[in-house]
Amino acid sequence: MALRVSIVAASGYTGGELLRLLLFHPNVEVAQATSESHAGEFIFQQHPNLRKRTQLQFVSQQALQPCDLLFLAMPHGEVQKKIDRYFSLAPKIIDLSADFRLKDLALYKKWYGHEHEAPQHLDKFIYGLPELHREQMKAAGAASLGSASLGSANLVGISGVGCNATASNFAIYPLVKAGLIDRSRPVVVDIKTGSSESGASVNPGSHHPEKSRAVRTYAATGHRHTAEVMQEMGLQDVHLTMTAVELVRGVLAAAHVFVKPGTTEKDLWKAYRAAYNNEPFVRIVKDRTGIHRVPDPKILSGSNYVDVGFELDPDTNRVVSLAAIDNLMKGASGSAVQAMNVLCGFEETAGLEFPGLHPI
Amino acid sequence: MALRVSIVAASGYTGGELLRLLLFHPNVEVAQATSESHAGEFIFQQHPNLRKRTQLQFVSQQALQPCDLLFLAMPHGEVQKKIDRYFSLAPKIIDLSADFRLKDLALYKKWYGHEHEAPQHLDKFIYGLPELHREQMKAAGAASLGSASLGSANLVGISGVGCNATASNFAIYPLVKAGLIDRSRPVVVDIKTGSSESGASVNPGSHHPEKSRAVRTYAATGHRHTAEVMQEMGLQDVHLTMTAVELVRGVLAAAHVFVKPGTTEKDLWKAYRAAYNNEPFVRIVKDRTGIHRVPDPKILSGSNYVDVGFELDPDTNRVVSLAAIDNLMKGASGSAVQAMNVLCGFEETAGLEFPGLHPI
Amino acid sequence: MALRVSIVAASGYTGGELLRLLLFHPNVEVAQATSESHAGEFIFQQHPNLRKRTQLQFVSQQALQPCDLLFLAMPHGEVQKKIDRYFSLAPKIIDLSADFRLKDLALYKKWYGHEHEAPQHLDKFIYGLPELHREQMKAAGAASLGSASLGSANLVGISGVGCNATASNFAIYPLVKAGLIDRSRPVVVDIKTGSSESGASVNPGSHHPEKSRAVRTYAATGHRHTAEVMQEMGLQDVHLTMTAVELVRGVLAAAHVFVKPGTTEKDLWKAYRAAYNNEPFVRIVKDRTGIHRVPDPKILSGSNYVDVGFELDPDTNRVVSLAAIDNLMKGASGSAVQAMNVLCGFEETAGLEFPGLHPI
Amino acid sequence: MALRVSIVAASGYTGGELLRLLLFHPNVEVAQATSESHAGEFIFQQHPNLRKRTQLQFVSQQALQPCDLLFLAMPHGEVQKKIDRYFSLAPKIIDLSADFRLKDLALYKKWYGHEHEAPQHLDKFIYGLPELHREQMKAAGAASLGSASLGSANLVGISGVGCNATASNFAIYPLVKAGLIDRSRPVVVDIKTGSSESGASVNPGSHHPEKSRAVRTYAATGHRHTAEVMQEMGLQDVHLTMTAVELVRGVLAAAHVFVKPGTTEKDLWKAYRAAYNNEPFVRIVKDRTGIHRVPDPKILSGSNYVDVGFELDPDTNRVVSLAAIDNLMKGASGSAVQAMNVLCGFEETAGLEFPGLHPI
Repeated sequence: MALRVSIVAASGYTGGELLRLLLFHPNVEVAQATSESHAGEFIFQQHPNLRKRTQLQFVSQQALQPCDLLFLAMPHGEVQKKIDRYFSLAPKIIDLSADFRLKDLALYKKWYGHEHEAPQHLDKFIYGLPELHREQMKAAGAASLGSASLGSANLVGISGVGCNATASNFAIYPLVKAGLIDRSRPVVVDIKTGSSESGASVNPGSHHPEKSRAVRTYAATGHRHTAEVMQEMGLQDVHLTMTAVELVRGVLAAAHVFVKPGTTEKDLWKAYRAAYNNEPFVRIVKDRTGIHRVPDPKILSGSNYVDVGFELDPDTNRVVSLAAIDNLMKGASGSAVQAMNVLCGFEETAGLEFPGLHPI
Repeated sequence: MALRVSIVAASGYTGGELLRLLLFHPNVEVAQATSESHAGEFIFQQHPNLRKRTQLQFVSQQALQPCDLLFLAMPHGEVQKKIDRYFSLAPKIIDLSADFRLKDLALYKKWYGHEHEAPQHLDKFIYGLPELHREQMKAAGAASLGSASLGSANLVGISGVGCNATASNFAIYPLVKAGLIDRSRPVVVDIKTGSSESGASVNPGSHHPEKSRAVRTYAATGHRHTAEVMQEMGLQDVHLTMTAVELVRGVLAAAHVFVKPGTTEKDLWKAYRAAYNNEPFVRIVKDRTGIHRVPDPKILSGSNYVDVGFELDPDTNRVVSLAAIDNLMKGASGSAVQAMNVLCGFEETAGLEFPGLHPI
Repeated sequence: MALRVSIVAASGYTGGELLRLLLFHPNVEVAQATSESHAGEFIFQQHPNLRKRTQLQFVSQQALQPCDLLFLAMPHGEVQKKIDRYFSLAPKIIDLSADFRLKDLALYKKWYGHEHEAPQHLDKFIYGLPELHREQMKAAGAASLGSASLGSANLVGISGVGCNATASNFAIYPLVKAGLIDRSRPVVVDIKTGSSESGASVNPGSHHPEKSRAVRTYAATGHRHTAEVMQEMGLQDVHLTMTAVELVRGVLAAAHVFVKPGTTEKDLWKAYRAAYNNEPFVRIVKDRTGIHRVPDPKILSGSNYVDVGFELDPDTNRVVSLAAIDNLMKGASGSAVQAMNVLCGFEETAGLEFPGLHPI
Repeated sequence: MALRVSIVAASGYTGGELLRLLLFHPNVEVAQATSESHAGEFIFQQHPNLRKRTQLQFVSQQALQPCDLLFLAMPHGEVQKKIDRYFSLAPKIIDLSADFRLKDLALYKKWYGHEHEAPQHLDKFIYGLPELHREQMKAAGAASLGSASLGSANLVGISGVGCNATASNFAIYPLVKAGLIDRSRPVVVDIKTGSSESGASVNPGSHHPEKSRAVRTYAATGHRHTAEVMQEMGLQDVHLTMTAVELVRGVLAAAHVFVKPGTTEKDLWKAYRAAYNNEPFVRIVKDRTGIHRVPDPKILSGSNYVDVGFELDPDTNRVVSLAAIDNLMKGASGSAVQAMNVLCGFEETAGLEFPGLHPI
């Protein structure tokens, strides 16, 4: 029997991507999709790729019915205010916002500038990257299934992931896991991003004549996703900088990591393979010939892959570790669906098979 | 049992697209993919989106084995020289080149500048647009199945379609079918195209600094696809012009058609609906609000849809009929797979379900 | 002594372009630049290319002082309401809006949907294309200089030009002038435009993720610039269609014109040379080799050139006549400054020498 | 009397940019422009922006005549082989290649992989950034003028600058000059570049369908421009990484620099102003509002400006220092012309007044 899921705030870009994935997911039935400003409209009016694929219409949140699992695609700060209501509608919640990503309330306050409004729910949430928390997700899913009653003990939340944090984490993780990082030196992560990152709402800076071909650094310091990298990688001396480039979908993170003296390219290969060889959505891209030698988000649009590569400067022990993703997929909705698959015991790749296009 | 198909000249863009579609097609098994210059390489070295999806390697044409159906993705002019060999390997051929599109040998000579080299095979080929030749394809497929022997009588060929011709034909067809065109006036089709149209081979004009944002008219008059439009639409006074714009995948055809005096918007709606309402891959896009009111190839990358729309100037009886496609999909490999589905009795949409991305 | 000019509504794109041209013009001093929403701000805050080039600040229209010549860069419909005030401030006005382009009040009403509000001033205005009205501009300038009093008789207005109309007119003009057009057949002009055409104000359709690489037909029929082409070319059966492509600056017009039977390429060369050989800002681009064989707006950003080319289909007598411009330059501010130069007796190319960039 | 200059290898992008600048330079006459593969062709066939602006034709190097100053725009490694001949033709040489940039022969060998072939000429060359070597250039120019004989003592060479090195140097220089850098920590420079950097020759990776919107890291470690930054900034622990983005002209360098604890934003303002306030081509861009708050190469196409900005993270003492240039201008031909101006006693900004375009 299909899992009945609903999506709150489905008119934006991550909401649209959830719809694209879930409408054709073999184990899922999309029950409702909400939008306050577009209630009553056909979904395809906001997501034109779904024309002739669904006659579903947006409804207001007020009309939301109980379901098996609820995806929340709202802006940061709103979920924590209404989380009780959402858990009253569904025992499983996957929240794409940043509200339940950080486990440390002090860290949360520092990066988000206010006290968390629903700290009592924090321990229900698992950070939403299956590659890092797969077993925890599986266990939570199994516990939920095995429980006799619908009590609070059975509520499970999965937080979404920050797209820039995700690219950074995939770039850094093999080096952390293998213990290769020289922790006396900083990790600088320079990130290039596409325009869909900032969402579907128009603003003066997104006006095409101003944005086309812009190379615009927009969070040179202090980007909030830094906190997710600190938490998930267990690093303190890590520094993110974001630069928007001409691209709609895509993130490329270049993590400049200094490794322990003596680390060889062979050591690095071993570390990357150990981290990723069994991962269905991670590919190591490090070729010597051809024009597709390094990870490039260009070819990842619509796919859930992370392409990871690296280069070592043996003279200085600097490794440039690259990770490319589609911010709306592996950086948001794709990881969310993947987490649902793990949580619900579906095939982990179900609904996420699209390989991406070339050329594009 | 899966249909065993092979692809000749699979390292180019239409070949890569065939691989993307066929490797995941529920009724098909890809046996071989040839490339003379890349024989021995992994397919994903040329088509990086297929990394981790297939370990298939290119082989040379010499190594080609018999199979159930052969796709040919070679440049124009080469297939007709070797067609006997290909038919000796497979009873069904889908040839994406222009070699077997034109039924009239004189027309062929006029537009391609030389005598056809395999006219004896012409009558085996069906023009590859299922929307125009579905019944013929079905019949040929059924005949082929029913036949007792593997004689020449059972050979079936399907020609590919010209991408620009296809966009033009979808724009014009409803008006032709409904008899609305004022044939005393010319039909001018102004076509905007993406850079993947000219294939995977580099040339000075495709060098990024020269091509990026170019608006370059490249066949103001005399484009060969004109002949396909004449043949399929039964029009004489039809004129195509191609302009390449900043885009990788996509064709937008604007057919400027003068209709019979008195034709109303209602008549046009009726004509478009009659032509397309039952077509799985054609959508009429003509909205009054929103930002997705007209057909735009931007959102069609990777999808097999044709989006069609129109606007009538009642003062002058001019209709601007628009059709948008992805040139590598509906304009080439997508239509080819769709034709295979019809020919072989598969679900017509099998393997072609990807709806496209938004935003992109 | 420098001509003192002021610019009304200078915070938009055409206003910014006027500032770029006039601040460095050898015969001109920029007195004031107005903006209601940015009054008090430095000009370089809206036009960042002018940082460190001028410390001028925007003022409100209320603060406008008398000057020698006033440029008006306001939206359509506003100038006609205040034209008396503007003429009280300056005896010479160059109005970039559409308010005084059409000479025929009935034509105005048809295309703009309302009665003209200042018809008494219409005869003071010269259509702003020096290539078509140079002598009239010169004469008006001379008369103005020679007059003893500042009476209404000495007021001179120059209307701006529609950018799409301008590209169309340059494409069509040689054929009209030489009498080569077969007037029994329609002239279809298919126009590709950049995003700066719709101005500096953000709107949902200009949001980068939606607009990037869009190929969006936005005035399939009924574009108002059609009226300017009718008026200036003396044609009735002329039809414009606009399609926005990925580009910030630039217009390419493809005029599909049927010429009289028997017209040869030599006749066409003669016609184009007769029309343009003495024009400082028109170049005929029709090469047989290289990658810059046809007019392309890509290389015209910032320059005042019109590049014009053509191709004849001798079988059908169709000529595709191409004209490329920068919409903010030859299509707006560049032509306005050129008109000022002619009107005021300056060197016609003064301030307009920038040749454009390659590559870009 | 105009300075007679010639340009060797003028058919490429930096050569074309030199021609654009020098043909309209008030103190210069362009005598000859060479190209081996295009000898006999008009210059505008390769540089279409110069059509109707010059009837000059390319000549072969064999036809090169003596002149006052010779610009060399050849690929790396070729100048050092023929430098004697070039000095026999002109007493002043400005060499845009990398041949005479590095002063230390061991450093040269390490980064370029071979022994320098003309070390005896190294001490004649001044590193070509006027902002760093203005007085040296002036002195060399004055000495050259004052000398009685045309002996070797009067030969003056100016090396070009690496475009990526230049952006990096402008980002780092204020911090070096003010002594603010914490030298126990690395300086990581992450650089985004446009496609014109790799020159006018087509290659598979520059094919539009592959390159458009690519975000392609191409020298993660070991980029040769690193050596120029080391030399000019006096830094050892400095690390460059290059990523090509969708852009034709432009470089944005983000230098991640750790400053001494306690450094304040006020200290940084002081340092940047001290370094750049008197520089005609450097602008500090650090605004609190608007959409043009940070340096962005987008608006610098064709201009000789460097836009510099910074952001301090007071918690971690990291400064992200940004510098944006047009790689063909300030990163190559613009700096070369500026150096010529200083060397020859011309107005330093002569021929370099173009402010850039907005929007673009």
